[in-house]
Amino acid sequence: MSMPPILSVDAMGGDNAPDVVVDGLSLFLSDRSGVSVLLHGDEAKLKPLIDARPALAGRCEIAHTDHYVSSEMKPSQALRRGKGTSMWNAVEAVKTGAASASVSAGNTGALMAISMLILRKMDGVHRPAMTAMWPTMKGRTAVLDVGANIEADASQLMTFAIMGEAYARAVLNKARPSVALLNIGSEDTKGHDELRGAHERLLSDVIDIDYVGFVEGDDISGGAVDVVVTDGFTGNVALKAGEGVARLVASYVREALTSGTMSKVGAVLASSGLKTLRERLNPSNVNGGVLLGLNGVSVKSHGGTDAKGFATACALAMDLAASSYMEEIAANLKRTSTTQVAAD
Amino acid sequence: MSMPPILSVDAMGGDNAPDVVVDGLSLFLSDRSGVSVLLHGDEAKLKPLIDARPALAGRCEIAHTDHYVSSEMKPSQALRRGKGTSMWNAVEAVKTGAASASVSAGNTGALMAISMLILRKMDGVHRPAMTAMWPTMKGRTAVLDVGANIEADASQLMTFAIMGEAYARAVLNKARPSVALLNIGSEDTKGHDELRGAHERLLSDVIDIDYVGFVEGDDISGGAVDVVVTDGFTGNVALKAGEGVARLVASYVREALTSGTMSKVGAVLASSGLKTLRERLNPSNVNGGVLLGLNGVSVKSHGGTDAKGFATACALAMDLAASSYMEEIAANLKRTSTTQVAAD
Repeated sequence: MSMPPILSVDAMGGDNAPDVVVDGLSLFLSDRSGVSVLLHGDEAKLKPLIDARPALAGRCEIAHTDHYVSSEMKPSQALRRGKGTSMWNAVEAVKTGAASASVSAGNTGALMAISMLILRKMDGVHRPAMTAMWPTMKGRTAVLDVGANIEADASQLMTFAIMGEAYARAVLNKARPSVALLNIGSEDTKGHDELRGAHERLLSDVIDIDYVGFVEGDDISGGAVDVVVTDGFTGNVALKAGEGVARLVASYVREALTSGTMSKVGAVLASSGLKTLRERLNPSNVNGGVLLGLNGVSVKSHGGTDAKGFATACALAMDLAASSYMEEIAANLKRTSTTQVAAD
Repeated sequence: MSMPPILSVDAMGGDNAPDVVVDGLSLFLSDRSGVSVLLHGDEAKLKPLIDARPALAGRCEIAHTDHYVSSEMKPSQALRRGKGTSMWNAVEAVKTGAASASVSAGNTGALMAISMLILRKMDGVHRPAMTAMWPTMKGRTAVLDVGANIEADASQLMTFAIMGEAYARAVLNKARPSVALLNIGSEDTKGHDELRGAHERLLSDVIDIDYVGFVEGDDISGGAVDVVVTDGFTGNVALKAGEGVARLVASYVREALTSGTMSKVGAVLASSGLKTLRERLNPSNVNGGVLLGLNGVSVKSHGGTDAKGFATACALAMDLAASSYMEEIAANLKRTSTTQVAAD
């Protein structure tokens, strides 16, 4: 990569900004030598926070602005009035080459709109897609789209598969990630026309990816594949339904272990195990959504994440920036378009 | 109800039939006086099983057949070749009035097709919908459709809402169940055209139900409402994604409590609490899917359920048969069709 190892960060986005952001950066930079940060936000607030954290000394430059995107702002308003905000400037630094990737914990819709406007879509990508990392029995699985679009036709699903595959290679350390389409059965005849169309095209050997076919909802947590592809409506519902179930089961565990005296004693003795459990269920371990299909890396951190979660999103952004995922996507997209031209 | 309190049961469907079926009936009948069972299947196999269980003495009549629907049979094959099978006969007994409801743990697609053919759709219902009971922070929530159809237009979603509401009143002991549409945001402007169309029609006060608007995926487990309405594709993915997450978290709990000596000791001491947890996570507590919108009750039990789960499905079937849910659905459907005619 010719771009400098600089991460551009929106200091003012998220429920507990800028404190959590600065704490997160401190964690992240302690772990990564050679990386520095360009921090967009209110200098008067940021300077004392930075000065108080040794890990940030000399590695965190403030780019002052006192304009912010609020959490209530609609995407259309963010596009009209967002220029000069900390979020806008964070993304723009990637466009100008001042940074190699950006992270924001702010307003999701605004960040998607601003990122699309500034970074623009890659050639051949009609709809960018939002990814999520889903913890599984075998590790982690990338799921996309989880909400950037509410519908997807066969061609868009195929593009999501191509983008998700390159993304998984970049961030999951898999040389050849396996990819599947999310459906309600594994037979070829199941599902919408769009799904069956994408299935047929992915089965053809034009595109260089390990496509395994259809999987069902429970195969995501099962870790059946590295990448699960779906439309943004279904992906968003599945992700949130899963989050809800995780919270429900966690509340059952809490209740179960605090009811009755012996249970309480047992819970204390089992506490090292339970700490491990909490750690595994901690959403900050999988924090960071990426809008794939743009000419640049813009990572969305969860707005309510803690410092560790923000650091996870920063690591994801830099891993992605250091990879060749964009070139790989472009190569596969070119294969499909060449075939289509030949077939016409 | 003028129908006799007789439950019609397919003895030969499911992974562990007929043993689990007969065990389940034994549990169910111990709990319900005044109900008897018409059991369809192989008399030579069933008679010794029944004779061995005191709870079934004099309350379980065998209707012999040695034809069965296999788990591999496609719905279309089941319709052509299913006549005279234990599944077919179990459903037909509801149609003829020999029984008030039927239960089968056999092939889902075949059961849906056979039930639709024999019981026929209620007037005004174009697409029946499959329900599931989802455990939540506050109790249980009915979710439909979870797979009978892969798509649903605005009018079908409204019909699902009407059917789900009457169903929840019958089986959840709620006088006025709250109903919501599943979406990817709670604003009126979110989602597909179909969803927004159904939303507008449900907001009008023609139909007598407590419609609260849109909910998101995590609101299902949160217990935000009593009934969550969606198309069969999204509902199936959400249900299975949730099942996958529940299994994942349960495996985390197991690992957490068995790693390290102190954890193991703690886990033993906490075992009464953990038993409660297992019980709450036991899918047999919420077993039983109902294909709503037919002129009669046909309940699908999970094929792999245990005796307790089968008993749960039987109780659901009889509760539904004893309720006036079909009349309530008919009344609300009539309201909507009258309005549509008036508007035309």
